Amino acid sequence: MGLFSKDIKTMDDLFLHQLKDVYYAEQQIVKNLPTMIEKASSPELKAGFEKHLNETRNQIKRLDDVFAALGKEAKGVDCEAMDGILDEAKSIMSEVEDQEVLDAALVASAQAVEHYEITRYGTLIAWAKQLGLTNVVSPLEQNLEEEKATDVKLTGMAESQINRRAA
Amino acid sequence: MGLFSKDIKTMDDLFLHQLKDVYYAEQQIVKNLPTMIEKASSPELKAGFEKHLNETRNQIKRLDDVFAALGKEAKGVDCEAMDGILDEAKSIMSEVEDQEVLDAALVASAQAVEHYEITRYGTLIAWAKQLGLTNVVSPLEQNLEEEKATDVKLTGMAESQINRRAA
Repeated sequence: MGLFSKDIKTMDDLFLHQLKDVYYAEQQIVKNLPTMIEKASSPELKAGFEKHLNETRNQIKRLDDVFAALGKEAKGVDCEAMDGILDEAKSIMSEVEDQEVLDAALVASAQAVEHYEITRYGTLIAWAKQLGLTNVVSPLEQNLEEEKATDVKLTGMAESQINRRAA
Repeated sequence: MGLFSKDIKTMDDLFLHQLKDVYYAEQQIVKNLPTMIEKASSPELKAGFEKHLNETRNQIKRLDDVFAALGKEAKGVDCEAMDGILDEAKSIMSEVEDQEVLDAALVASAQAVEHYEITRYGTLIAWAKQLGLTNVVSPLEQNLEEEKATDVKLTGMAESQINRRAA
């Protein structure tokens, strides 16, 4: 981003910027999930993260299709928000020793990631509809639904087992 | 946070850490909302941000009560996630010239802030219940409900007017 220029002039520019932001965010998730899989001790949580890693790779492919449909090069822009969320997740991982407490912390970090994506996809879908970019709504909605489902699954795991074991 | 020590040993430690994280986050919101109020051009959005600034001050008071109920000093810890979300909001504000596009960007930034808080309060409530800290559940739930209501209001404003004007 050009910090001292006014690079975003129209809603189309803003949409493209937000799309690049979420593209970068998904790539950072692919880079960081393997560490979370390694650190998780609950087999259920490990398997959940593994499934979401595959989903995320597929979500990136859908975003590639969205860029292609818009006739734009698929590329990311630094997303300070996702960097911050992941840095905080790494800090917490480094500070927790007990495996069961760590699982609870991992669920919380993953839910912060999911909520960031939920809000960004929600915004992108609203903007796409407003801009008449009807051909890109469906892949964005598929990504949104997967993020929401992951968040619900994480809440279920936390409430049914992980928090109880850790407390 | 002690980056090279394992400071979080129990779920109570993790709960307190997360409480400090959200306490810091709310304070950063109080610091940053005035700029967003100033930058907003839609009177409805400006009024919405002003209302939420007052709500946030009240939420901080509720968090003070939560710390007091736990017999702990009310203090924050650096929250890299909220810092990142707000840094990204500031970058976007600096890059958008058109007032109506800026309003759409401001709504998106505010919703990213709300979603971060929604996930953190959700986690804190689940942990408080698990830990039997029943006396702190209600103030945390009040904060959560206000954040959710703000998010819903922002979606309504965006869909009814702001995105349409900007597109």
